[in-house]
Amino acid sequence: MESTMMRFPLTLSCVLERAGAYFERTEIVERRPDRSIARTTIGNFYNRSRALAESLMKSGLRKGDRVATFLWNDTVHLEAYFGVPAAGGVVHPVNIRLHPDEIAYIVRHAGDRFLIIDAALLPLLEKIKNQAAFERVWVAGAAPGAPLPAGADHYESLIAGANGNFTYPILNEDDPAAMCYTSGTTGRSKGVVYSHRSIVLHTFAEVMPDAFGISQHDAVLVISPMFHVNGWGLPHSAVFTGAKLVLTGMHFDPAAILDLIVSENITVTGAIPTIWIAVRDALEAQPTRWKIKNTLRAVVGGAAPPAALLRALEKFNIKLMHAWGMTETSPVATFGSLKSNLLSLPECQQFETRCKQGWSVPFMETRVVDAGGAVVAWGGRDPGELQVRGPWVAASYYNNPETADRWTADGWFKTGDVATIDADGYICITDRAKDLIKSGGEWISSVDLENAIMGHPGVHEAAVVAVPHPKWQERPLAVVARRAHSEVTAAELSEFLSGHFAKWQIPDAFVFVSEIPKTSIGKFKKTALREQYKDWKWC
Amino acid sequence: MESTMMRFPLTLSCVLERAGAYFERTEIVERRPDRSIARTTIGNFYNRSRALAESLMKSGLRKGDRVATFLWNDTVHLEAYFGVPAAGGVVHPVNIRLHPDEIAYIVRHAGDRFLIIDAALLPLLEKIKNQAAFERVWVAGAAPGAPLPAGADHYESLIAGANGNFTYPILNEDDPAAMCYTSGTTGRSKGVVYSHRSIVLHTFAEVMPDAFGISQHDAVLVISPMFHVNGWGLPHSAVFTGAKLVLTGMHFDPAAILDLIVSENITVTGAIPTIWIAVRDALEAQPTRWKIKNTLRAVVGGAAPPAALLRALEKFNIKLMHAWGMTETSPVATFGSLKSNLLSLPECQQFETRCKQGWSVPFMETRVVDAGGAVVAWGGRDPGELQVRGPWVAASYYNNPETADRWTADGWFKTGDVATIDADGYICITDRAKDLIKSGGEWISSVDLENAIMGHPGVHEAAVVAVPHPKWQERPLAVVARRAHSEVTAAELSEFLSGHFAKWQIPDAFVFVSEIPKTSIGKFKKTALREQYKDWKWC
Repeated sequence: MESTMMRFPLTLSCVLERAGAYFERTEIVERRPDRSIARTTIGNFYNRSRALAESLMKSGLRKGDRVATFLWNDTVHLEAYFGVPAAGGVVHPVNIRLHPDEIAYIVRHAGDRFLIIDAALLPLLEKIKNQAAFERVWVAGAAPGAPLPAGADHYESLIAGANGNFTYPILNEDDPAAMCYTSGTTGRSKGVVYSHRSIVLHTFAEVMPDAFGISQHDAVLVISPMFHVNGWGLPHSAVFTGAKLVLTGMHFDPAAILDLIVSENITVTGAIPTIWIAVRDALEAQPTRWKIKNTLRAVVGGAAPPAALLRALEKFNIKLMHAWGMTETSPVATFGSLKSNLLSLPECQQFETRCKQGWSVPFMETRVVDAGGAVVAWGGRDPGELQVRGPWVAASYYNNPETADRWTADGWFKTGDVATIDADGYICITDRAKDLIKSGGEWISSVDLENAIMGHPGVHEAAVVAVPHPKWQERPLAVVARRAHSEVTAAELSEFLSGHFAKWQIPDAFVFVSEIPKTSIGKFKKTALREQYKDWKWC
Repeated sequence: MESTMMRFPLTLSCVLERAGAYFERTEIVERRPDRSIARTTIGNFYNRSRALAESLMKSGLRKGDRVATFLWNDTVHLEAYFGVPAAGGVVHPVNIRLHPDEIAYIVRHAGDRFLIIDAALLPLLEKIKNQAAFERVWVAGAAPGAPLPAGADHYESLIAGANGNFTYPILNEDDPAAMCYTSGTTGRSKGVVYSHRSIVLHTFAEVMPDAFGISQHDAVLVISPMFHVNGWGLPHSAVFTGAKLVLTGMHFDPAAILDLIVSENITVTGAIPTIWIAVRDALEAQPTRWKIKNTLRAVVGGAAPPAALLRALEKFNIKLMHAWGMTETSPVATFGSLKSNLLSLPECQQFETRCKQGWSVPFMETRVVDAGGAVVAWGGRDPGELQVRGPWVAASYYNNPETADRWTADGWFKTGDVATIDADGYICITDRAKDLIKSGGEWISSVDLENAIMGHPGVHEAAVVAVPHPKWQERPLAVVARRAHSEVTAAELSEFLSGHFAKWQIPDAFVFVSEIPKTSIGKFKKTALREQYKDWKWC
């Protein structure tokens, strides 16, 4: 027998249409390049997204064609998020913080046909123009009469050219809708192509009460750049639920973020630990400047947060929730919320648990595999490689057959993370495989050391890397940025760690710097540190 | 270009496996036939559901085979909900409150091959044995040595026969998983076959914060019978999220329900208005007997609740939320939660809005079509036929080509409800098409009259039906059940209504009865009332 249910595809055009119908008056707020605040509505966004879809189709966009964006977190980007897929195209937000050569490689590799670019980023286009060509370029945010590069047009003209005489193309839910490149620390960037289905299912999971928990009554702030894994899905989730959406524009400094949190009554957001560290420092430096009335549910991802950070932010009514994912997982894979049976744990253990990567959201399957390829049982002490599968996990990189070894024969994605899974199913990532420190035959976790060091009140940020050692093969070296006015010493930090680590696990050297170098999305750039200290002379 | 995402099917076996892994210790509670309370865990349910799947396969179950259940709301039923689809079968909960002839018709029409039956319902099996035959019958809840009908076996023996040596069949998400028959008030019952996909997507929508809002920290009480549209999806949603699940067994009286709400700290549930009316009466009769600590989010569906009922229950910390759906819509289609822009309305208008059927959950599309087939714009005053479509809406009835006219040429399901959609997108069902009263060329809504009459403090329940009239074609007649000790009169009710209705809309006759007749799922049986009063002599 067969099911009698309708075949009804999960598409972003359906999400867009519902938002336009039900949430017409819901606000969308953005910070402009000049730091002023602009306000619009979902109704206006809906009309403009449809206009974009129509004009792209009339400009010759064919099904599956890529439209690159060089944009920050703004409403034009949101229009591209929905308007391009509604037209049957693939929106490709490009990480504009990468080196121009890498950007040129990415747009060539993706085969981007069209480009939507913010006027402020035109110098970047100039830098890559000899390496990458777009058939059409539309410039957003340029003054009406301002000169544009040869062949480029105003984005507003593109929108204005629509007359409403158009219908959506018929879409299959497996059709491609968006793509992002992940800038691995080794090798060229690799592309992931999301489908309408994968984005819709990811959104359903993200808004669940046990994940981000987003309703139409929330106000959602997008801090993570919209070119980084679809802004962690938050733009989709806000439009899906009708929540008020607030976009940071190009301003990610803690004061800009805190100002929006307070003035827009933000209830849900997400950002990497380095952002939350900066927010904490700003709050502690000016404890009366920002008053957060309702508890802010603030997801932290991209790296494990120190427990001290969770504790510090809770004093200011910011509740950090650790989630884990990757570009390859759309990104939400696991969420660190406390399971019911752990609510009776002592407070310190609750914080410890909440700092783990968490447990799988529905339909995301996770496992840890040992060096021999055997699945490690939950509750084991030996770490192995974390592998995942599910409806919003990549099955390959775009047009990149040489990376097929990132998937197992039975179809799981090898994350490259080293992890354990505890008896309750919480994943705890010990390290990226390449960041583990092998000292005298024993493994040392750089992540554990970093988070412990960042628990010291005198430390702003810390990264620990493996440095070659003549006797022990590798030894940990800590690179530490002190907080303002802190004069903490290597001896004090070593003493501080001795309560939590065995003697052989404690870094032999502490290097003090003014700032830890960061990747384009704000994570610690450990490859650069390893390179910088590879010839370190051990005493 | 193609998406690079994994093809990962949405199946109930995946939901079951996740629950077994992450929610092993979560409680499942049921009320036994003798009214005692039994407790088990998701871990135990998981093992038994797998054992059921294995034993069914070893008993010869083939993909798509139907397994009927004659069961109330209990753990065996829950095992069938997951174990049968995991084995590739189709679980078919049969409405055991129907007439035996209708039940026999249904199991024959569905082609049910196997049956799982509660021992207390064996007399029903005896009544239909000459009209319907099952290849195998398993009896749950029978004492170990108790005599069984010829050919029947103990359900516990079936479970005990499993040895764990089995693997799930490979399932496609469009494979059938469950079926329910809807007992229309005219004609034979019609079957709807749900797929794994439709149930999973419905579950994602149901647990959203703007719908039932179910998390692992909730305690969910299933009041609606599990043979009525999958118990409104609540059993699936609880297993999906890891919420504590509480099952009413065969006891649906208000004291039994209130006892469970209090003793199990229920946070989410759902039931039809007649149940909530009985609960209100019980609470008002003994205001100190039950103390509900945390607000109970109580969905009401199946018919529109009177605003007076919402107000009355809020005094006891029960927050009614109106949702609408049908067997054909899995059931959740719309939800009456207040949209953000309506939160500033005066309280009385908020209650009025919350009594409407509400607005569509994601991917459920709704429209109202006039007699000429044109879609009626939102905010219009003229009602039309409500039509729906979406991934968990039936595209046909099972093996029933003569009902094809219930779907439009462009693929929408015609609900048979007459409705308007207001400017905010809230559906307001005026009536079932056949319940509208045509008086002197004007339409009168029986639903509006019923809810107004039930707003009178002396009224327990009221149903209004059209009765033929020599001059006006039809006139409304109200059938009223007074509350205990109430002596309200027809004249008083007529006077009470005159504040809200035009003179010609007010019923010409009020008949007082001890109880309104109900359908098998507890709705007012208006067909019976129309039949009973069709020869009414108007004064």
